[in-house]
Amino acid sequence: MQPTTPHVVIVGGGFGGINAAKAFAKQPVRVTLIDRRNHHLFQPLLYQVATAALSPGQIAAPIRAIFRRQPNVEVLLAEVTGFDLDGRHVLTADGGAIDYDYLIVAAGARDNYFGHDEWRALAPGLKSLDEALDIRRRILRAYETAEREALAARADGRELSQRRLDELLTFVIIGGGPTGVEMAGAIAEIARHTLRGEFRYVDPSRTRILLVEGSPQLLNGYPARLSNEATARLHRLGVEVRTSSIVTDVREGEVRIGEERVLAGTIIWAAGVRASDLGAKLGVPLDRGGRVQVEPDLTVPGHPEVYVVGDLAAVPGKDGRPLPGVAQPAIQGGKWAAANVLRTMRGEPRKPFRYVDLGRMAIIGRGAGVAEIGPLKIGGLVAWLIWLFIHIAYLIGFQNRLLVLTQWAWSYVTYQRAARLITGDRSARERVPV
Amino acid sequence: MQPTTPHVVIVGGGFGGINAAKAFAKQPVRVTLIDRRNHHLFQPLLYQVATAALSPGQIAAPIRAIFRRQPNVEVLLAEVTGFDLDGRHVLTADGGAIDYDYLIVAAGARDNYFGHDEWRALAPGLKSLDEALDIRRRILRAYETAEREALAARADGRELSQRRLDELLTFVIIGGGPTGVEMAGAIAEIARHTLRGEFRYVDPSRTRILLVEGSPQLLNGYPARLSNEATARLHRLGVEVRTSSIVTDVREGEVRIGEERVLAGTIIWAAGVRASDLGAKLGVPLDRGGRVQVEPDLTVPGHPEVYVVGDLAAVPGKDGRPLPGVAQPAIQGGKWAAANVLRTMRGEPRKPFRYVDLGRMAIIGRGAGVAEIGPLKIGGLVAWLIWLFIHIAYLIGFQNRLLVLTQWAWSYVTYQRAARLITGDRSARERVPV
Repeated sequence: MQPTTPHVVIVGGGFGGINAAKAFAKQPVRVTLIDRRNHHLFQPLLYQVATAALSPGQIAAPIRAIFRRQPNVEVLLAEVTGFDLDGRHVLTADGGAIDYDYLIVAAGARDNYFGHDEWRALAPGLKSLDEALDIRRRILRAYETAEREALAARADGRELSQRRLDELLTFVIIGGGPTGVEMAGAIAEIARHTLRGEFRYVDPSRTRILLVEGSPQLLNGYPARLSNEATARLHRLGVEVRTSSIVTDVREGEVRIGEERVLAGTIIWAAGVRASDLGAKLGVPLDRGGRVQVEPDLTVPGHPEVYVVGDLAAVPGKDGRPLPGVAQPAIQGGKWAAANVLRTMRGEPRKPFRYVDLGRMAIIGRGAGVAEIGPLKIGGLVAWLIWLFIHIAYLIGFQNRLLVLTQWAWSYVTYQRAARLITGDRSARERVPV
Repeated sequence: MQPTTPHVVIVGGGFGGINAAKAFAKQPVRVTLIDRRNHHLFQPLLYQVATAALSPGQIAAPIRAIFRRQPNVEVLLAEVTGFDLDGRHVLTADGGAIDYDYLIVAAGARDNYFGHDEWRALAPGLKSLDEALDIRRRILRAYETAEREALAARADGRELSQRRLDELLTFVIIGGGPTGVEMAGAIAEIARHTLRGEFRYVDPSRTRILLVEGSPQLLNGYPARLSNEATARLHRLGVEVRTSSIVTDVREGEVRIGEERVLAGTIIWAAGVRASDLGAKLGVPLDRGGRVQVEPDLTVPGHPEVYVVGDLAAVPGKDGRPLPGVAQPAIQGGKWAAANVLRTMRGEPRKPFRYVDLGRMAIIGRGAGVAEIGPLKIGGLVAWLIWLFIHIAYLIGFQNRLLVLTQWAWSYVTYQRAARLITGDRSARERVPV
């Protein structure tokens, strides 16, 4: 590599970063992609890991493997802690400073607890594989604890109190966006079908699932027809949907919704995200959600060599509201930023980002979904199938697509979930092995 | 269920416990199977998880799901802490006491650090999914750290010291039994093939792999011909085999072999197992390995209603030495104990256990194995294929067999490993998310 080859540093190996790096294939640049994790995560299927349908390896790919055949990309497992925009360095937690000629920041978002970070430990969110495995552990463990306590009570000649049973088998999902809707549908399926016949002292079909949403409808931002369809389908699955309801407190085993106190052994946070703290380190204006207010060409004001894409960027859509934090804006933004870097290198002007809206969708349990694609509003099985094939098509790695499709077909026929494992349980691990 | 139905309690959901419980299908007994974990683990493939070839969900099945269609089995997720043999209770960590009429203890074994339990944190063993994921994390992280430090050194205008590079890319596997041999072969493949072309500053093919064995040959107990073949094949894969070598100390980043000091960033313990501590809680004679010296019918001396099977039982084989701690003795022992319980219930005498030796095998990387089946001694690809099909045939769940076979075929053709994820890394998790 010539020392004069421009060096592009990309921060983040999500949809934005991966697609930016890919767009530099065979171009005369040297790319360094930095991520805290060694894998790219297919975030839209993360809730499937949390609900034991898929294994982590099926929705994640090592970033290095993705770029094996693209020799101008180097991958660095490191934690970025800040930037020196004037000196053109990226700073890392181990004290490193990485020079760049062009910088693309695609650091994504994290769960937003709206100032209540103390709720994080009680109500985990769904942003990483580790969090998904934590949620999976909590869901599965709730039934195991109920069975064990019911048996112990019986051995003492009494019944497990209704109060304790209600607590253990109540799941509250906070946030009625696509993630919350998908989680609620999947948990309902686990309770009504997957676990059927497996417990002797508790009845999993008596599980209570509450989906709590602050705005007046689920899937806020979707057309009312699809939102109503989602609500109706969740009702049929036995999910209690509470719209216009604000969570005012989260405690161990308890959620307060407005003035009401709901006992709940398992609480899941899907109430929204906030842009990565790295946005603030750029020293440029942010919006209320912590997103960087980029120029129309995705650069940062005053730094035409620095781009921000994906969930970390506030890019106004057609309606003036920022584009949603889903895969498509990140994928398209990453590619666009790379194209603008290449234009600059060729002495051409940068072009303002044009987002092509491919629609939106969500699924609600087995065989049912809602989708809005251009003028089309689709529900039911057709939406579910569209969702399935689009998501599998975008999965990285042919083998993963094959395995995920096989596993899905199997689960669809049998209601079985292949990854029902309780792992990483520290309390058990730290005891003397039996 | 009638109150007079005999109650069989089985401790442990490994090969012994699962097979004992299955043998009670449609019999007039009530079975309670207790395990600390919610899943049955297919232990022979655990090293495949540690070396990123398979996902945890592919070699483990929820115990409840296994017994869904066997209504006389109830499954309890609990930790057994002791026994009251005279009062016929099993004691659990949460203070429970479970009555039994018949007890089958199949609590298995754990890693044996031969009095050096302080080595456990430095050199993890391979007995649970969590340990396998820990080893996977250590192996993958070694290369990531080397790449990052090499890049940082270069940014400072120097090269990473040879000493540090040697340390990071040296893997020491302690113990040359089947697990150690299989681990060494798999790590060699990762280094020479899987990671090829993915790093820009370090060369994974320079990985040093040491397999240290105390006795004069690998696969101690196998015929000399197979042991020699394993050694030769490991040499060809670039593994340094040290037989008649005793590990005298393990420290952070360092192993002492006899008087020699070897720098090693990753140390894996495969040097042997010790029976579960639950054996000692039975108050009966144990052998040197902590195993219960059972009667020929697998009962405990003085307690004809209590059976011990699997790795926890010292059952003499034809040569007078205890049967090895592998799947077959546990499977056959579990079935036999159940049959003896049923004989007792019918008023028939218990029968002494007869073990049918089906042979032994190990694989050494891709497409090579050794097997001894009756009078046959087989090496190379044929042994590998036999190993593959026997292990897949014994996997629980048709879907798992299908997925594992697909994944294996894929890995064989491409050298790719599908589960190369670094997860559960607390140091990264506890930082503020980027």
